[in-house]
Amino acid sequence: MPSFTVFKAQKDGSIKEAITTKPDLTYDQVLVRITASGLCFTDVHYRHADMALGHEGVGIVQEVGPVVKNLRKGDRVGWGYLHNSCGMCEKCWTGHETYCAKRETYGAANFDQGSMASHGVWRESFLFRVPEGLTDAEAAPLMCGGATVWSAMELYGIGPTSRVGVIGVGGLGHLAIQFISKMGAEAVVFSGTDSKEAEAKRLGANKFYATKGKSEIDDPALQSHLDYLIVTSSYLPDWNVYLPLLAPEGKIIPLTVSDGDFKVPYEPLLMRGLAVQGSLVSPRFAHQHMLDFAARNGIKPLLNTFPLSVEGIEEAFNVLTSGKMRYRGVLIPEQH
Amino acid sequence: MPSFTVFKAQKDGSIKEAITTKPDLTYDQVLVRITASGLCFTDVHYRHADMALGHEGVGIVQEVGPVVKNLRKGDRVGWGYLHNSCGMCEKCWTGHETYCAKRETYGAANFDQGSMASHGVWRESFLFRVPEGLTDAEAAPLMCGGATVWSAMELYGIGPTSRVGVIGVGGLGHLAIQFISKMGAEAVVFSGTDSKEAEAKRLGANKFYATKGKSEIDDPALQSHLDYLIVTSSYLPDWNVYLPLLAPEGKIIPLTVSDGDFKVPYEPLLMRGLAVQGSLVSPRFAHQHMLDFAARNGIKPLLNTFPLSVEGIEEAFNVLTSGKMRYRGVLIPEQH
Repeated sequence: MPSFTVFKAQKDGSIKEAITTKPDLTYDQVLVRITASGLCFTDVHYRHADMALGHEGVGIVQEVGPVVKNLRKGDRVGWGYLHNSCGMCEKCWTGHETYCAKRETYGAANFDQGSMASHGVWRESFLFRVPEGLTDAEAAPLMCGGATVWSAMELYGIGPTSRVGVIGVGGLGHLAIQFISKMGAEAVVFSGTDSKEAEAKRLGANKFYATKGKSEIDDPALQSHLDYLIVTSSYLPDWNVYLPLLAPEGKIIPLTVSDGDFKVPYEPLLMRGLAVQGSLVSPRFAHQHMLDFAARNGIKPLLNTFPLSVEGIEEAFNVLTSGKMRYRGVLIPEQH
Repeated sequence: MPSFTVFKAQKDGSIKEAITTKPDLTYDQVLVRITASGLCFTDVHYRHADMALGHEGVGIVQEVGPVVKNLRKGDRVGWGYLHNSCGMCEKCWTGHETYCAKRETYGAANFDQGSMASHGVWRESFLFRVPEGLTDAEAAPLMCGGATVWSAMELYGIGPTSRVGVIGVGGLGHLAIQFISKMGAEAVVFSGTDSKEAEAKRLGANKFYATKGKSEIDDPALQSHLDYLIVTSSYLPDWNVYLPLLAPEGKIIPLTVSDGDFKVPYEPLLMRGLAVQGSLVSPRFAHQHMLDFAARNGIKPLLNTFPLSVEGIEEAFNVLTSGKMRYRGVLIPEQH
C-alpha cells in the first residue's frame, strides 16, 4: 500500500518527517500530490502543536473518490485554511461558510495532514482550480495570504473607485498593493521607513509614506481621503496618525490577530461614521475569484523558496520569524 | 415687523427667552411656526452653550422664499440635527450628506435658532413632510431620536429577517424595538432589571433579558444568534456578556457617544468576522423613509409633554437628567 510523507510540528519545536499510509479514497475525497507549499505566519503559532504543518497547498490530482464530480486526475489544484463546512446552515448557504460553526480550519481541527507533505487527501469541494498564468510556487502563497487580503476587499466593498490605505509592506501588504492597483483603485501605502518605497511603487502604490516617528501625516491631500484602511502590520497603529486620513464612513480592516482589546478612539468612530470590520479567511467563491483575478492580471507574490524537507522548513521558519522574508516563503519538493 | 421667540441656553445653565426679528425670506428659505419640539439628550450637552435649544422640530409652513419649489403655506413639516450640506461633494451626491465636510449640525454651528422657539427659518431641502397618522407631538421625537435609530438600521442592512439585539429601553431603545418589530424582524431586548419587560414586550420585543449582575446570558438558544446589536445605553456594555450572543459576522452599532476609546476584545472581532459600525444622524432619504414607515405602521414614541416655556423647558431637562423620562420629552407651545 502506498504511503506519503507529512512534515509535522513537535511539542519541542522541532520538525518531524512522518510516514502516513495512503487511505482508500471514499465519497468525494481527492488525492493530491503536492508540488508547492506556502509558509504563513499562522504556521508559527502551531510550531509546538504536534500537528501537520502548512495550509497553502498546490498540487496535482492523482486519484479521485467515487462521487467526485468535477476534478480529474492531472488537474492542478490548491487549498487553504478552510475545510469541511457543514453545507446546511445559513452561513454555508450564503457563501459565508468561513463562519459555519462546524467548519474545520487549519490548526483548529488538529489536522494530521497539511501542505508541507508529499501528498494530501481533501474533499473535492474545498479544492480550487489553479488557473494558467500562475506557477505552482506563485499560487501557493495565494491560498491563505492572498485569499485573506482579497476576501476582505471583495466582501467589504473595495472596488475600482476606492481609495485604500495599506499599513505594512510584507506578506499580506505586498499582495494588497497589487490587488488594489490592478483593479484601478488608489493604493496609498504606509511603511515604517522608506526602504520599501521603490518596491511598493513598482507593485502599484500610488503614494507611499514613511511613518516611523511621525505623529501625523503631513499631506493636506491625504486628510479625510481614504475609504478603507487595511492593517497588515502585526501591531495596531497609532490611530491619531491614521484616523484623520480616513474619509467619513471609512472602514478599518485589521487583518492580523493580536491578544487583548481592539481600541480605537470612540468619538471619531461615531461622529465620522467609521467602521471596524473584522475579517478572517476567505469563503470559497472569493478564493476562486482571487485566483482568477491574480492570473488574469499578472499578480504574483514575491517569493523566497526553500526545499520541502526538515532542514528547508526549519530554515524558512527562521527567515520568517527574523522578519527577513521578502515576502512569502514557499517550500518546493526536492524531487519535483 | 413681526418677531418670534427663541429659547436659548445660557452659560450659567439658565434658559432665556429671546425675541428675534423675523428676517425677510430669501432664496429657498421657509418660515415655520413651531407646534412641537422634542427634547433630546444632546440638548443637555448644550445646556451651557449660549445657543438656541432644540433640534426636533415640527410645525406649519407660514411663508416661503422666492425659489422654494415644493413646500407651500400650511404644509406640515419637521426637521432635525442636520442642515445645509454643500450639495456638491461625493457625500452629498450619494445620499451620505450626514458626512459632508461643510454640513451644519445642531450645536456645531452655534445656531441662533432651534426647535424650542415660536418660529424658525430653514432651507426647504432640509425640511421633511410629516405624514398623516402622526400627531405633531409624536412626530417631534422622531426628528432626531427616531432618525438616529432608523438610519443605523436602514444604512447597515437591518431587514425583515434580521435578529437584532437592543441594549437599553429608553428614548432610543423603545423606538428601536418598534421599528424592528414592525418590519417583522426579531427584537431581543436587554435591560438592567425586569421593570421594563412588560412594556418592551408590548412594544414588540420577542425576547427580554434582565442583565444586572449577570456575567452571561444563560439561554442556549441565544448563543451566536444575533446579527446585530444596537447599543442605546449611555455606557458601553460588558462585551463578555454580549459577544457570545452575536452570530459570526454580526454587527455592533453603538448609538450613544462617549469619551475615550471604544474597546472590544480583539480576537473574537477577527476570528468571528464581527464589525463595529459607527453611526451618527440620518441622511435625508432615510429620515423621510422613517417618518413614512412610522406613520404607516403605527409606531409612536411614548411621550412626556411639557409646556414650551422657560419653566416647561427647565422641568423637562430635570426629568430627563434624573433618568425619569418615559421615554421622550416633548414641548408644546401654550397657545397652540
